[in-house]
Amino acid sequence: MSAADIAATIRAGDRRALARAITLIESTRSDHRAQAEALIDALLPHAGGARRLGISGAPGVGKSSLIESFGQALIARGFRLAVLAVDPSSKVSGGSILGDKTRMQALAQNEAAFIRPSPAGKTLGGVARRTREAMIAVEAAGYDLVIVETVGVGQSETAVAELVDMFLLLLQPGGGDELQGIKKGIFELADLILVTKADGELAPAAERAVAEYRSALHLLRPASGSWRPEILACSALTGSGLAEIWETVERFCRSLGQNGGLAAKRAEQARSWLWQELRESLFEALLASPGLAEQVALLESRVMAGEITPAQAARGLLKTFLSASQGGPAG
Amino acid sequence: MSAADIAATIRAGDRRALARAITLIESTRSDHRAQAEALIDALLPHAGGARRLGISGAPGVGKSSLIESFGQALIARGFRLAVLAVDPSSKVSGGSILGDKTRMQALAQNEAAFIRPSPAGKTLGGVARRTREAMIAVEAAGYDLVIVETVGVGQSETAVAELVDMFLLLLQPGGGDELQGIKKGIFELADLILVTKADGELAPAAERAVAEYRSALHLLRPASGSWRPEILACSALTGSGLAEIWETVERFCRSLGQNGGLAAKRAEQARSWLWQELRESLFEALLASPGLAEQVALLESRVMAGEITPAQAARGLLKTFLSASQGGPAG
Repeated sequence: MSAADIAATIRAGDRRALARAITLIESTRSDHRAQAEALIDALLPHAGGARRLGISGAPGVGKSSLIESFGQALIARGFRLAVLAVDPSSKVSGGSILGDKTRMQALAQNEAAFIRPSPAGKTLGGVARRTREAMIAVEAAGYDLVIVETVGVGQSETAVAELVDMFLLLLQPGGGDELQGIKKGIFELADLILVTKADGELAPAAERAVAEYRSALHLLRPASGSWRPEILACSALTGSGLAEIWETVERFCRSLGQNGGLAAKRAEQARSWLWQELRESLFEALLASPGLAEQVALLESRVMAGEITPAQAARGLLKTFLSASQGGPAG
Repeated sequence: MSAADIAATIRAGDRRALARAITLIESTRSDHRAQAEALIDALLPHAGGARRLGISGAPGVGKSSLIESFGQALIARGFRLAVLAVDPSSKVSGGSILGDKTRMQALAQNEAAFIRPSPAGKTLGGVARRTREAMIAVEAAGYDLVIVETVGVGQSETAVAELVDMFLLLLQPGGGDELQGIKKGIFELADLILVTKADGELAPAAERAVAEYRSALHLLRPASGSWRPEILACSALTGSGLAEIWETVERFCRSLGQNGGLAAKRAEQARSWLWQELRESLFEALLASPGLAEQVALLESRVMAGEITPAQAARGLLKTFLSASQGGPAG
């Protein structure tokens, strides 16, 4: 089947075709890559119509439960929801996103939802690339709300924040030390902070946490800019706060939509992706250069021993790469 | 004069030779670069003996005043002090590091001190590279304490933190909103936080700020690891706190020196520098590729308009680069 045919099948709502397309996007085989690119080409004109939300938080904060509850509430409002899970560090998190088959059971069985975990990639850039392309595919398939979920470790939040229109950070109620597990730069990314598990015995702690984070946010985030990040408590169990979350998302999107803000944000994201792609693919080309690995091992140890400068070692490796590109001997 | 001869002159304590060497290091001319590399080669075996401190803070926080006072106190203790100022963003900061001739006047006239501002570079990587090499030069010249100063804007603090053994962050007393001007990730870099201007009318505010930051730090930094960042108030005017700063630096260095921690930290920094150098020089080679600039402009606008994916554009640019390396036409 041609890329155009596959694209038409996906646009017609064939979930299996969509799933296969994302598998193709994720493949590292070079023939698959070429097919994936042709497909993305065919799908791109039909993408971009969804609201894109990023959701992040530490393991155990309740991302899946919240997406399960919030997602069903959104479907009840008429949305078709795609959830793309980004887990660039499954080694660190114990593979929680992929491994846990019980996640989002109700959503997974809902015809209006499409849930797709991304396998761990060798590089964050690679995962981000695949997620961008998967987002194009699900949007072309008619999903009008995309949630990109990532576990709050490493730099994946930054990558996800660059993929979405609005970034939500989940924190749990606790004794005031909760921020420890979160990289602090994420506070700068969050458009909305949600304190989860605001139910039962934890409800008072959640309210205290909201007050505490609000005060921390006051310290950490300036009031400038068109949007000041907000903090809400919510419960996936009781559904409390879910309506407020959606109200805030809508208000954020209206605020962003004014004066071409959304188009400008997405154009800037696309420009930034281009340079990331370029740096990443350039570096991949270098790493794939014949004979480089041995030279890297040798030069790294010499650099670490202080025998040569990092600059000297880098020049040697660059020379090898450019010589290999030219088909000549490294010199 | 050969590189070996120049190196010998520098090691003998010739300040002019040292200053000329750093000028050579900073030059972008390719013949200068080759000379600089030969010189760094000759100096490297004699470097590495100094304690390396990074000092950062927002414009106006009092970096120069503190280095002036603290530096004189260190010289009184018998140290020979080199101050390397990194200002990758002189456009943003108004060129304060280079422009202000009245900075560190007393230090500048002290025989035991060597002060060198770095000009703004096109890339942070370039500035970091030059500063690394300048550090090698001053250490080979016998300076046994190096302070790398950077203004707290952009990502220069991260770059500086990777150059030094210990990173000091300066904050000023104020009304509780001071954190706004500081990128929050810097809290993660700081081994010691100094609240400046703890004198006269500001003394109570400085003490309050210390208490406030201590509490914020408790939220932001886990207790794990061998060193828990500390917070001190100090005054460049009265000298209060300077002895405590030095006591803390010594304690930190002892803590780091245990179990080979310092050697391991520096080896890891060197390895990280190698990869930064490699990525940076690779990207520079790409940008210098003939015909690339026009293609970039075209593809960027097509990507921003959503006509092609960032991945497609990146592939096109990479192809141009690799074809140019091969001397063939771009295809």
